[in-house]
Amino acid sequence: MQYYIDGFRSGDPDVKPAALGLDGTSTGRRAIAQKVDVLIAGCGPAGLCLAAQLAGFPEISTMIVEPKQGPMEKGQADGVSVRSMEMFQAFGFAEKIKREAYWVNQTTFWKPDPAKPQDIHRVGIAQDVADDQSEMPHTILNQARVHQLFLEVMKNAPTRLEPNYGLRVRDLTVDTSTKDHPVTVTLERVGVDDGTGETVTVRANYVVGCDGARSAVREAIGGKLHGDAAHQAWGVMDILANSDFPDLRRKCLIQSAKEGNILIIPREGGYLFRMYVELDKLNPDERVSNRNLTSDHIIAAANRIMCPYTIDVKEVVWWSVYEIGHRLTDKFDDVPFGETATRTPRVFTAGDACHTHSPKAGQGMNVSMGDTFNLGWKLAHVLTGRSDPSLLHSYSAERQLEARRLVETDHQWARIMSAPPGESELDGSEMPRFQKQFIENLEFTGGLAVHYEPSLIVAMPDHQGLATGQIIGKRFHSAPVLRLADAKRMQLGHVAEADGRWRIYAFAGKEDLGQTTPGILELCTYLENDPASPVRRSTRPDEDIDGLIDVRAVFQPDFTGLDFERMPALLRPAKGRYGLRDFEKVFCVDHKSGDDIYDMRGIDRENGCMIVVRPDQYVAHILPLNATTDLSAFFEGIFCRDP
Amino acid sequence: MQYYIDGFRSGDPDVKPAALGLDGTSTGRRAIAQKVDVLIAGCGPAGLCLAAQLAGFPEISTMIVEPKQGPMEKGQADGVSVRSMEMFQAFGFAEKIKREAYWVNQTTFWKPDPAKPQDIHRVGIAQDVADDQSEMPHTILNQARVHQLFLEVMKNAPTRLEPNYGLRVRDLTVDTSTKDHPVTVTLERVGVDDGTGETVTVRANYVVGCDGARSAVREAIGGKLHGDAAHQAWGVMDILANSDFPDLRRKCLIQSAKEGNILIIPREGGYLFRMYVELDKLNPDERVSNRNLTSDHIIAAANRIMCPYTIDVKEVVWWSVYEIGHRLTDKFDDVPFGETATRTPRVFTAGDACHTHSPKAGQGMNVSMGDTFNLGWKLAHVLTGRSDPSLLHSYSAERQLEARRLVETDHQWARIMSAPPGESELDGSEMPRFQKQFIENLEFTGGLAVHYEPSLIVAMPDHQGLATGQIIGKRFHSAPVLRLADAKRMQLGHVAEADGRWRIYAFAGKEDLGQTTPGILELCTYLENDPASPVRRSTRPDEDIDGLIDVRAVFQPDFTGLDFERMPALLRPAKGRYGLRDFEKVFCVDHKSGDDIYDMRGIDRENGCMIVVRPDQYVAHILPLNATTDLSAFFEGIFCRDP
Repeated sequence: MQYYIDGFRSGDPDVKPAALGLDGTSTGRRAIAQKVDVLIAGCGPAGLCLAAQLAGFPEISTMIVEPKQGPMEKGQADGVSVRSMEMFQAFGFAEKIKREAYWVNQTTFWKPDPAKPQDIHRVGIAQDVADDQSEMPHTILNQARVHQLFLEVMKNAPTRLEPNYGLRVRDLTVDTSTKDHPVTVTLERVGVDDGTGETVTVRANYVVGCDGARSAVREAIGGKLHGDAAHQAWGVMDILANSDFPDLRRKCLIQSAKEGNILIIPREGGYLFRMYVELDKLNPDERVSNRNLTSDHIIAAANRIMCPYTIDVKEVVWWSVYEIGHRLTDKFDDVPFGETATRTPRVFTAGDACHTHSPKAGQGMNVSMGDTFNLGWKLAHVLTGRSDPSLLHSYSAERQLEARRLVETDHQWARIMSAPPGESELDGSEMPRFQKQFIENLEFTGGLAVHYEPSLIVAMPDHQGLATGQIIGKRFHSAPVLRLADAKRMQLGHVAEADGRWRIYAFAGKEDLGQTTPGILELCTYLENDPASPVRRSTRPDEDIDGLIDVRAVFQPDFTGLDFERMPALLRPAKGRYGLRDFEKVFCVDHKSGDDIYDMRGIDRENGCMIVVRPDQYVAHILPLNATTDLSAFFEGIFCRDP
Repeated sequence: MQYYIDGFRSGDPDVKPAALGLDGTSTGRRAIAQKVDVLIAGCGPAGLCLAAQLAGFPEISTMIVEPKQGPMEKGQADGVSVRSMEMFQAFGFAEKIKREAYWVNQTTFWKPDPAKPQDIHRVGIAQDVADDQSEMPHTILNQARVHQLFLEVMKNAPTRLEPNYGLRVRDLTVDTSTKDHPVTVTLERVGVDDGTGETVTVRANYVVGCDGARSAVREAIGGKLHGDAAHQAWGVMDILANSDFPDLRRKCLIQSAKEGNILIIPREGGYLFRMYVELDKLNPDERVSNRNLTSDHIIAAANRIMCPYTIDVKEVVWWSVYEIGHRLTDKFDDVPFGETATRTPRVFTAGDACHTHSPKAGQGMNVSMGDTFNLGWKLAHVLTGRSDPSLLHSYSAERQLEARRLVETDHQWARIMSAPPGESELDGSEMPRFQKQFIENLEFTGGLAVHYEPSLIVAMPDHQGLATGQIIGKRFHSAPVLRLADAKRMQLGHVAEADGRWRIYAFAGKEDLGQTTPGILELCTYLENDPASPVRRSTRPDEDIDGLIDVRAVFQPDFTGLDFERMPALLRPAKGRYGLRDFEKVFCVDHKSGDDIYDMRGIDRENGCMIVVRPDQYVAHILPLNATTDLSAFFEGIFCRDP
C-alpha cells in the first residue's frame, strides 16, 4: 500500500481523503441529484463493483439506486472464483475474504454404489485450483458480505459514495440529439415510507442496468433474453446441520441412482453449508412457483438422495427453489447492430439483466462483477475525457461473447449433472463423466478462460512468443518478484489497483541492469521524454507521470546486483504535492525462493519484453522493448490526442 | 475463522455477538462504574492489549481510563516485532498490518569512507528476519494505528468495551483485609471540560498501571525505577522528505566519523520514514529539555551525519528529543518480596511504568504488549474462577526477568551504537562490530528470545527431546500443516486466538491414523472420558468441551490416507447450542509443499508427542502421548479443583 504522499493523515489508510466538499459526513450525497454522470440501477454484485470503481473518481458523479430499503443480509450467490479474488485484490479486500471465507481445495464425487445402488459412495476426488493457476484461492462467502466489502470501498473512496435505497428504475428514454445528459430516467419510490409509487426524474450521461433478470433498464432499451429452460426444479438452502456424511467440509457432487443429484458447497465460518438439491421435473409450460415447494421438500429430497447418510437440519438460514434457465440478450447496450458507426452507447445492461444460467457452476456473481469491471474503466476513460465515447462499444462486444460462452458451458454442465448416472458413463472411461467434465471446466469456473478477441484495446498476438505464459486477451497472470528498494517479496500483479490506470510491465533482457541502452533505459527515456510517447501525451499537467499509464520494470539479477539510484528517472518518479520519490516501480527476480517469473510466465530471457495491461487486468499487448512506435500507435487508438 | 456456530448472523464476522444487555450501542459502558473487576490505567499498547483480551469475557467487567481526550493520532513507537505479529494474528488483525505496514527485510550498515572520512559509505547488508524464524514479517507501523486496531477488537468484542478518556489515576490504596474489590482508586478528570481536577472513586478487584514512565500506579505501590542514563541527547522525527541517499526504503544504521549516528526506519505507505539522530552529549545532571532542541536541530544534525548525502524535508509529521535511560522496577506488582506466600497481587505495572530503555532497538511497544499478553489470561483465569489468585505471582516473576534482559541488551546495544567508529572495530573482525552485534541481537529484537523459567506454568524440560524445535518456556513456533476436513493448507499456530484458552497439540507417531491405541486415540479417550482428565475436570457444564483446553491433532500421512469420520470423538466435538460438529481439530503433514512440520520442529516421528501451549502462545510442557498422569498433574497445579 502506498499512502501519505501528500502528507500524513491519521487513521485507517483504506479511508481515502475525501474529495473537496465531502468531508466524511456526506449524507447530502444520498439526496437525489437532478443530473449525474452515471446512474447505476441495482445494488447487486454488478452494480456495486461498478460503483466501487467510479467512486474513486472525484470528477465523476455517480448515483446507485436499489429498490430494497437497505443492504442485502443473506442468501443468493456465494462462489468467488480465483479471478474474482484477483479483482478483489485490486479493490483492497482480498485479504479480508481470504481470512473469512471457505477455501475450495478439493472436490469429491459420489455415485451409486454398484453393490447397493440405493446407497451413494465416494468415487473420486479432484484438486480444485490447479498449481500456479492463480496466486488466489477459490473461496466461498455469502454475497451479502461481498456487497458489504464493496460498500466499504465506496464509502471510504474520495466521493464517499453510498446507495440511494428504496428507489427503482421504472423507465428511461435516450435523446440521441444531445450530448448533455441525454438519458432521462424515471425513478419510483419503493417500500415502507409514504412516498411509495411517487416518481422522480434524473438525467444521466450513462445508465447501467444491473437490475436483475427482470431488468427495467433492459426492457427500456428493447433488450430480450433468449434461451431455454430445462424444466427442472432445484432447491437451494444454506443450513446449519449435522450429518454422518463424511465430506461436509469439501465441495461434493453427488449423483444418486434414482433420487436425483446434490451439490454441496461448504461455506464461511466452519459450520454453515449450502446444498443444491434436484427436485421435480416440470411440465414444459409449468412454473416452479406452482409446485409450492418449501425448505422441508428440499430437506426431504436431500435425505433421499444422500442415502445411507442423513442430514439433521438445525437452522435454515436461507432457501429458494428455482428452475434452470439459460438466457442471453443479443447486445448489452442500447445501440442497434446497424448503428454502431453512427451512435455510441448511453445505456448498458450487466449481470442477470443480460444473462441468466444455472447457479451451480458458481458463476453468477463472478461473471456479473466481470461485466462491470470491464465497463467501469471505459466509462471513466470517456467521462474524464481520456477516450472517445466509441470505446464504449467494446463493452458489449467483449462481454456478450463471454456470456455466450458461459451460457453454453453451463448448459452442457447442467445436462451432465442431471443425466442419470448410468448414461453419464457412456464414454467408457474410468473416471466418471461428471468428474472428468468438472476437471475440464476448472479453468472456466475459475474465471480464467475469459479471452477477449483482438480489437482496438486488444492487440493481435504478433509478439506472443515474448511471453508465452501471458496470453494477449486473457488476464495478466501474476507471479512472485522482489521489490528492489526494500527487498520485499511480493506478487507483481498486486501493484495493480482498481483505479482505471494502465500498466506497462517492462521485463529486462539478460544483461540489462537499467543503466545502458538498449533495453529498459531506452524505453523509459522514450516514454518520459519523447513527444510521441503515450505516457507523456496522456499525462495532464496537473497529474503525476503515472496518472494514466503506470510503468514498472523487472530485472533478472538478484537485488544485491542492482542499483536503485541508477535506475531510469521514469522508474523513480517524483510525485504528489511534495514531489516525493516513488520507490515501488522496480522489481527483480526472487532468486531465493526459486520462483523465477521469467520461467513461470515464459518471458524471453534474452531480450525481455513489455506487457501492456488494461485497467481491468487483461493483457492488451506484448511488444519488444524497443517497439516504441508500435506502442504509441496502440495507445493512439485508445486515448484522445489532447488529454 | 469459525463462526455461525449458534446460528447465522449477517455482517462482519469480526463484530462478535454482543453480550447480554450490550446490543451494540453501549454508550452506557463509558459511564463510570462504581465497581469493576479490572481497572486499566492508560491507553498505550500495554493497556489496550490487556483491554482487548479482557473485552472477550462477558463475565469480567473492565474499565480502561486515559488522560488524553481521545485516541492517539501519531508519533511514538513504530516497530512491530515478528513475535508481536504472531500475537496480532491471535487478535485477528495481523493480515491488516501485513497489508499496510512497511516490512523490514534487509538492514544496511554505513560507516565513514576510509578514503574520505567525512563521507559515509555502505559497508554491509543483513537479512532482518532469519529464514523460518517466524511465519510473520517484521513490520513498521505507527503506534496510533496499532491502538486503533486494538480499539476495534475491543469495540467488536462481546462486551463492546471502549475507553473512558479524560481520566487519570491519581492514587490508589489496597485493603488487604477484604476480597471484595479491595483496591480503591482515585480518578481525576483531565482536560477540556469543566470537570477538570474533579475526582471520582472506583473500587476494583485488580488495577493495572499501563500509565507510562511517570506512572501514578507504580508510585502508589511504592515501585521505583532504578538504572542510569547515558547523558546523550537523541532526536527522532517522522518525516516526508527527498534525499539522494540510496537506502531510504531499507532500515539503515549509520555511523559518521565525527558527527554522530543515525538510525533510519522506513515506514508504512511507501514515503514516510523515521530518523533517530544522535544530538549533543549532556552534562551528568542536565536534562535534555534544557537544550531547547527543535526539529530544525535534528534535520541539521542529520544532514551533517549523512554527508555526502542530503535530506530535503517536506513535512515533519512528528518529532521529539529524548535522552537514553535504562530503568527498571524491582517488581511488577504490589506484593513485597517477603510476602508472596501470604498475599496475592492486586495491583500491577506494565510497559514503561516498570521498564524504560532506548527506543532504537524497536522494543518498547513490543515488550509492553508482551507484558499484558502475559497478564491478561492470568487475570481472566482468576476472575472466572479457573485458577487460584496465586497464579498472578507469575506475572512479575516472568516479566521482570525478561525486562531485565531487555534493559541489559539495550544498554549494550546503545553503547555499541554510540561508540566512535574507530573503537567499534576493536575486535578485529571483517564485519563492523555494530553489524555483527545487530545480527547477534536479531532473535532478541524479533521478540523470540523470551524464555520463561520453570514454574507452576512452565514444566521442566524433561521431554524436550520429543520436540527439539519447540522450546519449553519459549513461544510455540508455528509451521505449515494441512487441515484434514477441507484440505486447507495453513499455519498450525494460527488456530490459537487471544481468547485465554490453552492448546494441546498432539502429534501422532509414525503409524498412527487415529483409529487404534496406543497413540492419539488413547490420549483423546482419556481426555474426554477419564474423571482425572484436565479437559473433563476443567470444563463447566454450560460450555463446550474445548472451552478451556483446545485439543488438536496432527498426523503424518497425506490427507488422502486419513479418515476424518474415524477420528476420536474429542477431535470432532459437538459444540454450541445446536451441537454442531467442529471440523477444524485434525491436521496432517503438508506433503505437497515439502514443509514437514515434524522435520521443521524436530518432532519425534516414531512416537509423536503432545505440546501444551499457554493462552499467550508459550510452550508450557512437552510430554509423551501416553503421559496422561503427568499431564493431569501439571494442570492440577494451575486450575482449581472445582471449575
